[in-house]
Amino acid sequence: MTSIKKISFVGSGNVATHLAKAFSKKGILVHQIYSQTCDNSEILAWQSNAIYICELNELDLDVDLLIFAVKDDVIKKLAQEIIAKNPNLKMVHTSGSVSLEVFNGAVNCGIFYPLQSFSKTKKINISEVPFLITSQQPEFKNELFALAHLLSDKVYEFTDEQRKHLHIAAVFVNNFSNHLFALAQDYCEKHQLDYQLLKPLIRETIAKIDVLLPKEAQTGPAKRDDVEIIQKHLNILQNENLDLFNLYKLMSESIMKMNNEEN
Amino acid sequence: MTSIKKISFVGSGNVATHLAKAFSKKGILVHQIYSQTCDNSEILAWQSNAIYICELNELDLDVDLLIFAVKDDVIKKLAQEIIAKNPNLKMVHTSGSVSLEVFNGAVNCGIFYPLQSFSKTKKINISEVPFLITSQQPEFKNELFALAHLLSDKVYEFTDEQRKHLHIAAVFVNNFSNHLFALAQDYCEKHQLDYQLLKPLIRETIAKIDVLLPKEAQTGPAKRDDVEIIQKHLNILQNENLDLFNLYKLMSESIMKMNNEEN
Repeated sequence: MTSIKKISFVGSGNVATHLAKAFSKKGILVHQIYSQTCDNSEILAWQSNAIYICELNELDLDVDLLIFAVKDDVIKKLAQEIIAKNPNLKMVHTSGSVSLEVFNGAVNCGIFYPLQSFSKTKKINISEVPFLITSQQPEFKNELFALAHLLSDKVYEFTDEQRKHLHIAAVFVNNFSNHLFALAQDYCEKHQLDYQLLKPLIRETIAKIDVLLPKEAQTGPAKRDDVEIIQKHLNILQNENLDLFNLYKLMSESIMKMNNEEN
Repeated sequence: MTSIKKISFVGSGNVATHLAKAFSKKGILVHQIYSQTCDNSEILAWQSNAIYICELNELDLDVDLLIFAVKDDVIKKLAQEIIAKNPNLKMVHTSGSVSLEVFNGAVNCGIFYPLQSFSKTKKINISEVPFLITSQQPEFKNELFALAHLLSDKVYEFTDEQRKHLHIAAVFVNNFSNHLFALAQDYCEKHQLDYQLLKPLIRETIAKIDVLLPKEAQTGPAKRDDVEIIQKHLNILQNENLDLFNLYKLMSESIMKMNNEEN
Protein backbone atom coordinates (compact mmCIF):
# COMPACT_ATOMS: atom_id res chain seq x y z
CA MET A 1 0.00 0.00 0.00
CA THR A 2 1.20 3.47 -0.79
CA SER A 3 1.15 6.22 1.78
CA ILE A 4 0.70 8.74 -1.02
CA LYS A 5 -3.01 9.58 -1.06
CA LYS A 6 -3.23 13.16 -2.28
CA ILE A 7 -1.27 14.48 -5.26
CA SER A 8 -1.14 17.53 -7.48
CA PHE A 9 0.18 18.03 -10.98
CA VAL A 10 2.31 20.76 -12.48
CA GLY A 11 1.41 20.49 -16.15
CA SER A 12 -1.69 19.37 -18.06
CA GLY A 13 -0.27 17.83 -21.22
CA ASN A 14 -0.40 14.26 -22.50
CA VAL A 15 1.50 12.64 -19.63
CA ALA A 16 -0.35 14.59 -16.92
CA THR A 17 -3.67 13.74 -18.56
CA HIS A 18 -3.09 9.99 -18.60
CA LEU A 19 -1.53 9.83 -15.13
CA ALA A 20 -4.11 12.07 -13.44
CA LYS A 21 -7.01 10.09 -14.87
CA ALA A 22 -5.38 6.76 -13.99
CA PHE A 23 -4.60 7.82 -10.40
CA SER A 24 -8.08 9.23 -9.95
CA LYS A 25 -9.57 5.89 -11.04
CA LYS A 26 -7.40 4.09 -8.50
CA GLY A 27 -8.69 6.20 -5.63
CA ILE A 28 -5.81 8.66 -5.33
CA LEU A 29 -7.07 12.18 -4.73
CA VAL A 30 -5.89 14.45 -7.51
CA HIS A 31 -6.04 17.78 -5.74
CA GLN A 32 -4.83 20.52 -8.09
CA ILE A 33 -3.66 20.77 -11.66
CA TYR A 34 -1.54 23.76 -12.53
CA SER A 35 -1.00 24.93 -16.06
CA GLN A 36 0.49 28.23 -17.08
CA THR A 37 -1.57 28.42 -20.24
CA CYS A 38 -4.73 27.32 -18.45
CA ASP A 39 -6.24 25.90 -21.65
CA ASN A 40 -5.91 22.21 -20.86
CA SER A 41 -5.96 22.22 -17.09
CA GLU A 42 -9.68 22.97 -16.84
CA ILE A 43 -10.69 19.97 -18.93
CA LEU A 44 -8.22 17.69 -17.20
CA ALA A 45 -9.25 18.90 -13.75
CA TRP A 46 -12.85 18.11 -14.62
CA GLN A 47 -11.88 14.64 -15.86
CA SER A 48 -9.95 13.79 -12.71
CA ASN A 49 -12.14 15.57 -10.14
CA ALA A 50 -9.41 18.09 -9.43
CA ILE A 51 -9.18 21.86 -9.10
CA TYR A 52 -7.41 23.71 -11.89
CA ILE A 53 -5.18 26.68 -11.22
CA CYS A 54 -3.32 29.01 -13.57
CA GLU A 55 -1.09 30.77 -11.04
CA LEU A 56 1.79 28.92 -9.44
CA ASN A 57 1.32 30.78 -6.16
CA GLU A 58 -2.17 29.28 -5.86
CA LEU A 59 -0.55 25.86 -5.55
CA ASP A 60 -1.50 24.20 -2.26
CA LEU A 61 1.69 22.75 -0.83
CA ASP A 62 -0.22 20.44 1.52
CA VAL A 63 -0.14 17.31 -0.68
CA ASP A 64 1.68 13.97 -0.39
CA LEU A 65 3.32 14.35 -3.78
CA LEU A 66 3.75 16.93 -6.50
CA ILE A 67 4.20 15.53 -10.02
CA PHE A 68 5.94 17.71 -12.60
CA ALA A 69 4.74 16.72 -16.07
CA VAL A 70 5.88 19.70 -18.06
CA LYS A 71 8.38 20.35 -20.84
CA ASP A 72 11.92 19.51 -19.74
CA ASP A 73 13.22 23.05 -19.99
CA VAL A 74 10.79 24.46 -17.40
CA ILE A 75 10.93 21.71 -14.74
CA LYS A 76 13.94 23.18 -12.95
CA LYS A 77 12.68 26.75 -12.78
CA LEU A 78 9.24 25.76 -11.47
CA ALA A 79 10.67 23.18 -9.06
CA GLN A 80 13.15 25.61 -7.55
CA GLU A 81 10.38 28.18 -6.95
CA ILE A 82 8.42 25.57 -5.00
CA ILE A 83 11.45 24.14 -3.15
CA ALA A 84 12.26 27.68 -1.96
CA LYS A 85 8.82 27.78 -0.31
CA ASN A 86 8.73 24.22 1.02
CA PRO A 87 11.80 21.98 0.71
CA ASN A 88 9.91 19.17 2.50
CA LEU A 89 7.33 18.76 -0.22
CA LYS A 90 7.85 15.41 -1.94
CA MET A 91 8.21 15.78 -5.68
CA VAL A 92 8.90 13.83 -8.86
CA HIS A 93 9.05 14.58 -12.55
CA THR A 94 8.07 12.30 -15.43
CA SER A 95 10.84 13.08 -17.93
CA GLY A 96 13.15 10.52 -19.48
CA SER A 97 16.06 12.91 -19.91
CA VAL A 98 16.10 15.28 -16.95
CA SER A 99 18.38 14.43 -14.01
CA LEU A 100 17.51 14.41 -10.34
CA GLU A 101 19.65 17.55 -9.98
CA VAL A 102 16.75 19.80 -10.98
CA PHE A 103 15.34 19.09 -7.52
CA ASN A 104 18.48 20.22 -5.65
CA GLY A 105 17.42 21.39 -2.21
CA ALA A 106 14.35 19.13 -1.94
CA VAL A 107 14.43 16.62 0.92
CA ASN A 108 12.55 13.90 -0.98
CA CYS A 109 12.62 13.86 -4.73
CA GLY A 110 12.59 11.34 -7.51
CA ILE A 111 11.72 10.45 -11.06
CA PHE A 112 8.56 8.66 -12.07
CA TYR A 113 9.03 7.98 -15.78
CA PRO A 114 6.36 6.11 -17.73
CA LEU A 115 8.03 4.56 -20.78
CA GLN A 116 5.18 5.17 -23.16
CA SER A 117 3.99 7.66 -25.75
CA PHE A 118 0.78 9.33 -24.66
CA SER A 119 -1.68 11.16 -26.88
CA LYS A 120 -4.68 12.80 -25.30
CA THR A 121 -7.21 11.32 -27.69
CA LYS A 122 -5.85 7.75 -27.58
CA LYS A 123 -6.75 5.45 -24.70
CA ILE A 124 -3.96 3.36 -23.28
CA ASN A 125 -3.70 0.24 -21.15
CA ILE A 126 -1.63 1.75 -18.37
CA SER A 127 -1.12 -1.62 -16.67
CA GLU A 128 1.29 -2.55 -19.49
CA VAL A 129 3.36 0.63 -19.24
CA PRO A 130 6.81 0.17 -17.65
CA PHE A 131 7.46 2.75 -14.91
CA LEU A 132 11.09 3.63 -14.27
CA ILE A 133 11.75 4.95 -10.78
CA THR A 134 14.77 6.93 -9.61
CA SER A 135 15.33 8.29 -6.12
CA GLN A 136 18.19 8.52 -3.66
CA GLN A 137 15.92 8.44 -0.60
CA PRO A 138 15.22 4.74 0.10
CA GLU A 139 11.93 5.27 1.92
CA PHE A 140 10.59 7.68 -0.66
CA LYS A 141 11.70 5.30 -3.40
CA ASN A 142 9.61 2.56 -1.80
CA GLU A 143 6.63 4.89 -1.74
CA LEU A 144 7.09 5.65 -5.41
CA PHE A 145 7.31 1.92 -6.18
CA ALA A 146 4.04 1.34 -4.33
CA LEU A 147 2.41 4.25 -6.13
CA ALA A 148 3.55 2.99 -9.55
CA HIS A 149 2.35 -0.53 -8.69
CA LEU A 150 -1.16 0.89 -8.31
CA LEU A 151 -1.06 1.49 -12.06
CA SER A 152 1.24 -1.17 -13.49
CA ASP A 153 3.00 -4.44 -12.69
CA LYS A 154 6.10 -3.31 -14.53
CA VAL A 155 8.00 -1.07 -12.12
CA TYR A 156 11.79 -0.89 -12.23
CA GLU A 157 14.55 1.03 -10.54
CA PHE A 158 16.71 2.95 -13.02
CA THR A 159 19.63 5.29 -12.53
CA ASP A 160 19.62 8.70 -14.20
CA GLU A 161 22.16 7.39 -16.72
CA GLN A 162 20.19 4.24 -17.56
CA ARG A 163 16.96 6.17 -17.98
CA LYS A 164 18.61 8.67 -20.35
CA HIS A 165 19.90 5.88 -22.57
CA LEU A 166 16.56 4.09 -22.62
CA HIS A 167 14.87 7.38 -23.47
CA ILE A 168 17.12 7.78 -26.51
CA ALA A 169 16.23 4.25 -27.62
CA ALA A 170 12.55 5.14 -27.06
CA VAL A 171 12.86 8.19 -29.31
CA PHE A 172 14.21 5.93 -32.06
CA VAL A 173 11.52 3.24 -31.80
CA ASN A 174 8.57 5.53 -31.21
CA ASN A 175 9.04 9.11 -32.40
CA PHE A 176 11.25 8.31 -35.36
CA SER A 177 9.31 5.29 -36.61
CA ASN A 178 6.09 7.32 -36.35
CA HIS A 179 7.78 10.02 -38.40
CA LEU A 180 8.65 7.43 -41.06
CA PHE A 181 4.92 6.64 -41.22
CA ALA A 182 4.15 10.36 -41.51
CA LEU A 183 6.67 10.76 -44.35
CA ALA A 184 5.11 7.76 -46.12
CA GLN A 185 1.65 9.29 -45.64
CA ASP A 186 2.87 12.53 -47.24
CA TYR A 187 4.59 10.68 -50.07
CA CYS A 188 1.47 8.63 -50.84
CA GLU A 189 -0.75 11.71 -50.81
CA LYS A 190 1.63 13.49 -53.14
CA HIS A 191 1.36 10.60 -55.61
CA GLN A 192 -2.39 10.20 -55.07
CA LEU A 193 -1.95 6.75 -53.58
CA ASP A 194 -4.03 5.46 -50.69
CA TYR A 195 -1.82 5.53 -47.59
CA GLN A 196 -4.18 3.03 -45.91
CA LEU A 197 -2.82 0.32 -48.22
CA LEU A 198 0.35 0.39 -46.10
CA LYS A 199 -1.49 -0.44 -42.87
CA PRO A 200 -1.23 -4.27 -43.08
CA LEU A 201 2.49 -3.87 -43.76
CA ILE A 202 2.92 -1.57 -40.76
CA ARG A 203 0.98 -3.99 -38.55
CA GLU A 204 3.15 -6.89 -39.75
CA THR A 205 6.34 -4.88 -39.07
CA ILE A 206 5.33 -4.86 -35.42
CA ALA A 207 3.78 -8.33 -35.27
CA LYS A 208 7.11 -9.67 -36.49
CA ILE A 209 9.15 -8.34 -33.65
CA ASP A 210 6.92 -10.19 -31.21
CA VAL A 211 8.38 -13.42 -32.57
CA LEU A 212 11.75 -12.32 -33.98
CA LEU A 213 14.43 -9.95 -32.79
CA PRO A 214 14.49 -6.81 -34.97
CA LYS A 215 17.80 -7.81 -36.50
CA GLU A 216 16.36 -11.18 -37.55
CA ALA A 217 13.20 -9.52 -38.87
CA GLN A 218 15.05 -7.12 -41.20
CA THR A 219 14.07 -7.42 -44.86
CA GLY A 220 14.22 -5.10 -47.87
CA PRO A 221 16.66 -3.91 -50.53
CA ALA A 222 19.44 -2.87 -48.14
CA LYS A 223 19.22 -6.16 -46.22
CA ARG A 224 19.51 -8.06 -49.53
CA ASP A 225 22.35 -5.79 -50.62
CA ASP A 226 20.23 -5.03 -53.68
CA VAL A 227 22.16 -1.96 -54.80
CA GLU A 228 20.26 -1.77 -58.08
CA ILE A 229 16.91 -1.07 -56.38
CA ILE A 230 18.50 1.23 -53.83
CA GLN A 231 20.02 3.29 -56.64
CA LYS A 232 16.70 3.32 -58.49
CA HIS A 233 14.87 4.58 -55.42
CA LEU A 234 17.53 7.20 -54.74
CA ASN A 235 17.27 8.45 -58.33
CA ILE A 236 13.51 8.88 -57.96
CA LEU A 237 13.82 10.62 -54.58
CA GLN A 238 16.67 12.91 -55.60
CA ASN A 239 14.41 14.60 -58.12
CA GLU A 240 11.40 14.71 -55.82
CA ASN A 241 12.38 15.30 -52.23
CA LEU A 242 15.89 15.85 -50.93
CA ASP A 243 14.92 15.10 -47.32
CA LEU A 244 13.58 11.68 -48.23
CA PHE A 245 16.67 11.13 -50.38
CA ASN A 246 19.01 11.87 -47.45
CA LEU A 247 17.02 9.70 -45.04
CA TYR A 248 16.81 6.83 -47.53
CA LYS A 249 20.54 6.96 -48.09
CA LEU A 250 21.50 7.15 -44.41
CA MET A 251 19.08 4.39 -43.38
CA SER A 252 20.20 2.06 -46.18
CA GLU A 253 23.87 2.62 -45.39
CA SER A 254 23.16 1.93 -41.74
CA ILE A 255 21.33 -1.33 -42.56
CA MET A 256 24.19 -2.48 -44.81
CA LYS A 257 26.71 -1.61 -42.11
CA MET A 258 24.77 -3.71 -39.60
CA ASN A 259 24.74 -6.57 -42.13
CA ASN A 260 28.50 -6.40 -42.46
CA GLU A 261 29.05 -6.36 -38.72
CA GLU A 262 26.97 -9.54 -38.44
CA ASN A 263 28.83 -11.40 -41.17
CA MET B 1 -12.82 -18.55 -61.09
CA THR B 2 -9.29 -18.44 -62.38
CA SER B 3 -8.22 -20.41 -65.39
CA ILE B 4 -4.73 -20.64 -63.91
CA LYS B 5 -4.48 -24.11 -62.35
CA LYS B 6 -0.84 -25.07 -62.63
CA ILE B 7 2.03 -22.76 -61.77
CA SER B 8 5.78 -22.88 -61.25
CA PHE B 9 8.13 -20.62 -59.35
CA VAL B 10 11.50 -19.19 -60.27
CA GLY B 11 12.97 -18.49 -56.85
CA SER B 12 12.55 -20.02 -53.41
CA GLY B 13 13.01 -17.07 -51.05
CA ASN B 14 10.57 -15.44 -48.63
CA VAL B 15 8.00 -14.33 -51.21
CA ALA B 16 8.07 -17.62 -53.16
CA THR B 17 7.71 -19.55 -49.89
CA HIS B 18 4.60 -17.72 -48.73
CA LEU B 19 2.94 -17.62 -52.16
CA ALA B 20 3.67 -21.26 -53.07
CA LYS B 21 2.29 -22.52 -49.76
CA ALA B 22 -0.79 -20.28 -49.99
CA PHE B 23 -1.56 -21.32 -53.59
CA SER B 24 -1.04 -24.97 -52.74
CA LYS B 25 -3.56 -24.67 -49.90
CA LYS B 26 -6.07 -23.13 -52.30
CA GLY B 27 -5.86 -26.07 -54.68
CA ILE B 28 -3.52 -24.57 -57.27
CA LEU B 29 -0.97 -27.12 -58.45
CA VAL B 30 2.52 -25.85 -57.71
CA HIS B 31 4.46 -27.82 -60.28
CA GLN B 32 8.13 -26.86 -60.09
CA ILE B 33 10.28 -24.61 -57.95
CA TYR B 34 13.56 -23.53 -59.46
CA SER B 35 16.41 -22.15 -57.43
CA GLN B 36 19.94 -21.67 -58.61
CA THR B 37 21.41 -22.30 -55.18
CA CYS B 38 19.14 -25.30 -54.61
CA ASP B 39 19.32 -24.88 -50.83
CA ASN B 40 15.81 -23.60 -50.20
CA SER B 41 13.93 -25.06 -53.12
CA GLU B 42 13.95 -28.61 -51.76
CA ILE B 43 12.27 -27.63 -48.49
CA LEU B 44 9.79 -25.35 -50.21
CA ALA B 45 8.96 -27.96 -52.85
CA TRP B 46 8.26 -30.44 -50.09
CA GLN B 47 6.03 -27.92 -48.28
CA SER B 48 3.99 -27.14 -51.38
CA ASN B 49 3.93 -30.62 -52.97
CA ALA B 50 6.11 -29.45 -55.83
CA ILE B 51 9.21 -30.69 -57.63
CA TYR B 52 12.42 -28.79 -57.02
CA ILE B 53 14.94 -28.15 -59.77
CA CYS B 54 18.33 -26.50 -59.76
CA GLU B 55 18.88 -26.18 -63.52
CA LEU B 56 16.90 -23.63 -65.49
CA ASN B 57 16.79 -25.94 -68.52
CA GLU B 58 14.88 -28.50 -66.45
CA LEU B 59 12.03 -26.02 -66.20
CA ASP B 60 8.84 -27.50 -67.66
CA LEU B 61 7.30 -24.77 -69.83
CA ASP B 62 3.91 -26.47 -69.84
CA VAL B 63 2.34 -24.50 -66.99
CA ASP B 64 -0.42 -21.86 -66.86
CA LEU B 65 1.81 -19.32 -65.15
CA LEU B 66 5.44 -18.84 -64.21
CA ILE B 67 6.05 -16.64 -61.16
CA PHE B 68 9.44 -14.94 -60.81
CA ALA B 69 10.14 -14.33 -57.15
CA VAL B 70 13.87 -13.64 -57.26
CA LYS B 71 16.13 -10.68 -56.58
CA ASP B 72 15.34 -7.76 -58.88
CA ASP B 73 18.66 -7.80 -60.67
CA VAL B 74 18.27 -11.35 -62.03
CA ILE B 75 14.59 -11.27 -63.13
CA LYS B 76 15.38 -9.88 -66.58
CA LYS B 77 18.17 -12.30 -67.44
CA LEU B 78 16.21 -15.38 -66.40
CA ALA B 79 12.98 -14.14 -68.01
CA GLN B 80 14.66 -13.43 -71.33
CA GLU B 81 16.17 -16.94 -71.41
CA ILE B 82 12.72 -18.43 -70.98
CA ILE B 83 10.96 -16.04 -73.37
CA ALA B 84 13.50 -17.04 -76.05
CA LYS B 85 12.30 -20.64 -75.68
CA ASN B 86 8.59 -19.96 -75.34
CA PRO B 87 7.25 -16.42 -75.77
CA ASN B 88 3.70 -17.70 -75.17
CA LEU B 89 4.35 -18.76 -71.60
CA LYS B 90 2.41 -16.49 -69.25
CA MET B 91 4.63 -14.90 -66.63
CA VAL B 92 4.64 -12.43 -63.75
CA HIS B 93 7.14 -11.19 -61.22
CA THR B 94 6.49 -10.14 -57.63
CA SER B 95 8.78 -7.12 -57.35
CA GLY B 96 7.68 -3.65 -56.31
CA SER B 97 10.30 -1.82 -58.32
CA VAL B 98 10.88 -3.74 -61.55
CA SER B 99 9.01 -2.59 -64.68
CA LEU B 100 7.03 -4.70 -67.09
CA GLU B 101 9.82 -4.12 -69.62
CA VAL B 102 11.86 -7.02 -68.24
CA PHE B 103 9.34 -9.28 -70.00
CA ASN B 104 9.80 -7.68 -73.44
CA GLY B 105 8.96 -10.30 -76.04
CA ALA B 106 6.47 -12.22 -73.89
CA VAL B 107 2.90 -12.35 -75.21
CA ASN B 108 1.27 -12.30 -71.76
CA CYS B 109 3.12 -10.80 -68.85
CA GLY B 110 2.35 -8.90 -65.71
CA ILE B 111 3.22 -8.01 -62.17
CA PHE B 112 1.77 -9.70 -59.13
CA TYR B 113 3.08 -7.67 -56.21
CA PRO B 114 2.11 -8.57 -52.65
CA LEU B 115 2.53 -5.45 -50.51
CA GLN B 116 3.85 -7.22 -47.46
CA SER B 117 7.11 -8.12 -45.77
CA PHE B 118 7.57 -11.88 -45.65
CA SER B 119 9.92 -13.79 -43.39
CA LYS B 120 10.12 -17.54 -43.78
CA THR B 121 9.70 -18.28 -40.09
CA LYS B 122 6.78 -15.90 -39.50
CA LYS B 123 3.26 -16.95 -40.44
CA ILE B 124 1.13 -14.36 -42.15
CA ASN B 125 -2.57 -13.84 -42.74
CA ILE B 126 -2.38 -13.65 -46.53
CA SER B 127 -6.06 -12.68 -46.86
CA GLU B 128 -5.12 -9.22 -45.51
CA VAL B 129 -2.24 -8.66 -47.92
CA PRO B 130 -2.94 -6.13 -50.69
CA PHE B 131 -2.03 -7.51 -54.14
CA LEU B 132 -1.11 -4.95 -56.76
CA ILE B 133 -1.63 -6.15 -60.32
CA THR B 134 -0.11 -4.70 -63.49
CA SER B 135 -0.61 -6.01 -67.01
CA GLN B 136 -1.26 -4.55 -70.42
CA GLN B 137 -3.15 -7.62 -71.68
CA PRO B 138 -6.77 -7.18 -70.48
CA GLU B 139 -7.66 -10.88 -70.47
CA PHE B 140 -4.48 -11.90 -68.70
CA LYS B 141 -5.01 -9.09 -66.22
CA ASN B 142 -8.43 -10.52 -65.39
CA GLU B 143 -6.87 -13.93 -64.85
CA LEU B 144 -4.33 -12.42 -62.47
CA PHE B 145 -7.10 -10.63 -60.58
CA ALA B 146 -8.97 -13.92 -60.19
CA LEU B 147 -5.78 -15.66 -59.06
CA ALA B 148 -5.01 -12.97 -56.48
CA HIS B 149 -8.61 -13.07 -55.24
CA LEU B 150 -8.06 -16.72 -54.32
CA LEU B 151 -5.67 -15.44 -51.66
CA SER B 152 -6.92 -12.00 -50.68
CA ASP B 153 -9.89 -9.65 -50.94
CA LYS B 154 -7.59 -6.70 -51.45
CA VAL B 155 -6.62 -6.76 -55.12
CA TYR B 156 -5.90 -3.53 -57.00
CA GLU B 157 -4.73 -2.47 -60.43
CA PHE B 158 -1.56 -0.38 -60.27
CA THR B 159 0.59 1.14 -62.99
CA ASP B 160 4.35 0.58 -62.96
CA GLU B 161 4.80 4.16 -61.74
CA GLN B 162 2.27 3.88 -58.92
CA ARG B 163 3.70 0.59 -57.73
CA LYS B 164 7.23 2.02 -57.63
CA HIS B 165 6.12 4.94 -55.50
CA LEU B 166 4.17 2.72 -53.12
CA HIS B 167 7.19 0.45 -52.85
CA ILE B 168 9.35 3.38 -51.75
CA ALA B 169 6.74 4.27 -49.11
CA ALA B 170 6.75 0.60 -48.04
CA VAL B 171 10.54 0.64 -47.59
CA PHE B 172 10.14 3.63 -45.25
CA VAL B 173 7.35 2.17 -43.11
CA ASN B 174 8.63 -1.39 -42.97
CA ASN B 175 12.35 -1.79 -43.62
CA PHE B 176 13.44 1.51 -42.11
CA SER B 177 11.22 1.36 -39.03
CA ASN B 178 12.40 -2.20 -38.40
CA HIS B 179 15.96 -0.92 -38.65
CA LEU B 180 15.18 1.73 -36.02
CA PHE B 181 14.09 -1.11 -33.75
CA ALA B 182 17.33 -2.97 -34.53
CA LEU B 183 19.40 0.12 -33.73
CA ALA B 184 17.51 0.49 -30.45
CA GLN B 185 18.14 -3.19 -29.69
CA ASP B 186 21.88 -2.66 -30.25
CA TYR B 187 21.92 0.52 -28.21
CA CYS B 188 20.13 -1.16 -25.29
CA GLU B 189 22.47 -4.15 -25.37
CA LYS B 190 25.47 -1.86 -25.39
CA HIS B 191 24.18 -0.14 -22.26
CA GLN B 192 23.07 -3.42 -20.65
CA LEU B 193 19.43 -2.39 -20.74
CA ASP B 194 16.61 -4.81 -21.47
CA TYR B 195 15.42 -4.10 -25.01
CA GLN B 196 12.13 -5.89 -24.20
CA LEU B 197 11.13 -2.90 -22.06
CA LEU B 198 10.56 -1.01 -25.32
CA LYS B 199 8.01 -3.50 -26.63
CA PRO B 200 4.86 -1.87 -25.14
CA LEU B 201 6.03 1.43 -26.61
CA ILE B 202 6.55 -0.12 -30.04
CA ARG B 203 3.13 -1.77 -29.89
CA GLU B 204 1.53 1.54 -28.94
CA THR B 205 3.33 3.32 -31.80
CA ILE B 206 1.40 1.08 -34.16
CA ALA B 207 -1.86 0.91 -32.20
CA LYS B 208 -1.97 4.69 -32.40
CA ILE B 209 -1.97 4.91 -36.14
CA ASP B 210 -5.06 2.71 -36.23
CA VAL B 211 -6.97 5.61 -34.68
CA LEU B 212 -4.88 8.64 -35.65
CA LEU B 213 -3.09 9.68 -38.81
CA PRO B 214 0.71 9.44 -38.31
CA LYS B 215 1.05 13.21 -38.39
CA GLU B 216 -1.50 13.54 -35.60
CA ALA B 217 0.16 10.76 -33.61
CA GLN B 218 3.61 12.38 -33.62
CA THR B 219 5.05 13.04 -30.15
CA GLY B 220 8.56 13.48 -28.77
CA PRO B 221 11.22 16.16 -28.34
CA ALA B 222 11.29 17.27 -31.99
CA LYS B 223 7.50 17.52 -32.13
CA ARG B 224 7.53 19.68 -28.98
CA ASP B 225 10.41 21.74 -30.40
CA ASP B 226 12.30 20.81 -27.24
CA VAL B 227 15.75 21.81 -28.47
CA GLU B 228 17.29 21.34 -25.04
CA ILE B 229 16.59 17.58 -24.97
CA ILE B 230 17.52 17.18 -28.61
CA GLN B 231 20.88 18.82 -27.95
CA LYS B 232 21.39 16.67 -24.85
CA HIS B 233 20.69 13.49 -26.82
CA LEU B 234 22.96 14.60 -29.66
CA ASN B 235 25.78 15.31 -27.21
CA ILE B 236 25.47 11.78 -25.79
CA LEU B 237 25.32 10.16 -29.23
CA GLN B 238 28.16 12.19 -30.72
CA ASN B 239 30.57 10.61 -28.26
CA GLU B 240 29.13 7.12 -28.60
CA ASN B 241 27.98 6.41 -32.11
CA LEU B 242 28.25 8.74 -35.08
CA ASP B 243 25.69 6.80 -37.14
CA LEU B 244 23.04 7.19 -34.47
CA PHE B 245 24.04 10.84 -34.13
CA ASN B 246 23.52 11.48 -37.85
CA LEU B 247 20.20 9.64 -37.93
CA TYR B 248 18.94 11.39 -34.80
CA LYS B 249 19.83 14.76 -36.27
CA LEU B 250 18.30 14.13 -39.68
CA MET B 251 15.08 12.64 -38.25
CA SER B 252 14.63 15.46 -35.74
CA GLU B 253 15.19 18.12 -38.40
CA SER B 254 12.69 16.36 -40.63
CA ILE B 255 10.07 16.26 -37.84
CA MET B 256 10.58 19.95 -37.09
CA LYS B 257 10.31 20.79 -40.77
CA MET B 258 7.01 18.92 -40.97
CA ASN B 259 5.81 20.86 -37.90
CA ASN B 260 6.59 24.14 -39.58
CA GLU B 261 4.85 23.17 -42.79
CA GLU B 262 1.71 22.40 -40.77
CA ASN B 263 1.69 25.70 -38.89
